[in-house]
Amino acid sequence: MKNTIGKTPGLGVILVGGRRDSQSFVRIKMKACMKVGIVPFTVELPEDCSEAELFDAVSSFNENPLIHGVIVQLPLPKAQHLDEEKIISYVSPEKDVDGFHPTNVGNLAMQGREPSFIPCASKSCIELLLRNDVEIKGKNVVVVGRSKLVGLPTSLLMQRHHATVTTVHAFTGNPKQVTRGADILVSDIGVPNMIRGHWLNPGVIVVDMGANSVEDTDSLKGQRLIGDVCYDAAIVKASAITPVPGGVGPITISMLLSNTLDAAKRTYRHT
Amino acid sequence: MKNTIGKTPGLGVILVGGRRDSQSFVRIKMKACMKVGIVPFTVELPEDCSEAELFDAVSSFNENPLIHGVIVQLPLPKAQHLDEEKIISYVSPEKDVDGFHPTNVGNLAMQGREPSFIPCASKSCIELLLRNDVEIKGKNVVVVGRSKLVGLPTSLLMQRHHATVTTVHAFTGNPKQVTRGADILVSDIGVPNMIRGHWLNPGVIVVDMGANSVEDTDSLKGQRLIGDVCYDAAIVKASAITPVPGGVGPITISMLLSNTLDAAKRTYRHT
Repeated sequence: MKNTIGKTPGLGVILVGGRRDSQSFVRIKMKACMKVGIVPFTVELPEDCSEAELFDAVSSFNENPLIHGVIVQLPLPKAQHLDEEKIISYVSPEKDVDGFHPTNVGNLAMQGREPSFIPCASKSCIELLLRNDVEIKGKNVVVVGRSKLVGLPTSLLMQRHHATVTTVHAFTGNPKQVTRGADILVSDIGVPNMIRGHWLNPGVIVVDMGANSVEDTDSLKGQRLIGDVCYDAAIVKASAITPVPGGVGPITISMLLSNTLDAAKRTYRHT
Repeated sequence: MKNTIGKTPGLGVILVGGRRDSQSFVRIKMKACMKVGIVPFTVELPEDCSEAELFDAVSSFNENPLIHGVIVQLPLPKAQHLDEEKIISYVSPEKDVDGFHPTNVGNLAMQGREPSFIPCASKSCIELLLRNDVEIKGKNVVVVGRSKLVGLPTSLLMQRHHATVTTVHAFTGNPKQVTRGADILVSDIGVPNMIRGHWLNPGVIVVDMGANSVEDTDSLKGQRLIGDVCYDAAIVKASAITPVPGGVGPITISMLLSNTLDAAKRTYRHT
């Protein structure tokens, strides 16, 4: 793109407050941008910033022609005066590279429509399956969890790919019974090792979207990352499984870059 | 509303082309409006109207302060130049009493957000269950069909009510096996009597959203309406079932009126 039309995609990232994990995610995203030649723009606001200040930051990125993708790092501080849903709705749908704007979610849900962007974690999950020649159409897919960032859009995307989708959540009566019917199981729970061997159908394909930090006295940092699925138990039953760390996580970052590139291409009508 | 603040809700209906069933649906909606004191506005465009003319009609209703709800009667004629999705997106989300605008569908899909309107057929289905004290939370709900008018929003709405939802469609490998796991079965297929007794779990609650016109030489009109579910076979297995005609159909019209009233109340901040 740089060589042919002399333009460079730009990603605007807004960070509010001092959460260490959020700061680290933002750093990872910026580094990844620079590695592939996307220009990262960031603005950091204090935890006690006003809603108006945050809206202004989003506005300035929405209107900046050098910025093609805009993301607000989630979660926002749990402050009464910052309404996460309102702020997400304020990101221009055409720059919403996270894919969380309700118009994009609606377009993702509806056959015959195209969302401007598919949420990165869900896109990562499907890319992983497609590139490994896993058939999705007609398969029983069980998505455990329905968060707006991961579980919900993944259910919608799997349905778009013509899977028969069941979404399991906290109120599901007998989750094990449902997961045992899965050809493909996607977990978005946030509870380490919750899914055990007897939850799984032999031959199932497991995509573990969990990334749970647990104590580990053997590690220099005193902690390590594990998934929602008990890997040791699942590996003997599953025909394929993504590890944590190293599975969908890194691909998710790539999908953010890919969405940003798509946004820039659309702006310049570059193919 | 009329008595307290001197205002009357208005519903704007746009009909394109001469489909007899569409004309009849529009007449039913207008009559229902008049019965409850909602003022119906209609505009009829010829099948060969331009897209610009149709946009103008939607615009004029969007901007008319006497009209609080705007619907475009679907399906539009299958003309190349009329893009149904584009036209639905053009209805103001705040007047979209059909609930088909992608922003409203996205807000329906996401927990923690409120769509301005829930699609009438889906709302009818849930009202019917709630008013009959059917527990939805934690139940296995199978929705057969995923049309944007009925199946898709019903799946999303059932999930909002914390059911464990599975959506069955044309690519589902073994639909009977899935439907036999249902505590509540909702059908949106459009094939008369497709769901037979052996598709059903004993005690299941059946909501038949189908309305299929079949030949009937005994009838004066030469045809009659039947559902997707074989009623005679289902009635001996189900603990409750909605008949066709007379089940969800009439309630769907009421939900349209209810959405229109809600829209007017919001406009005038009337409670």
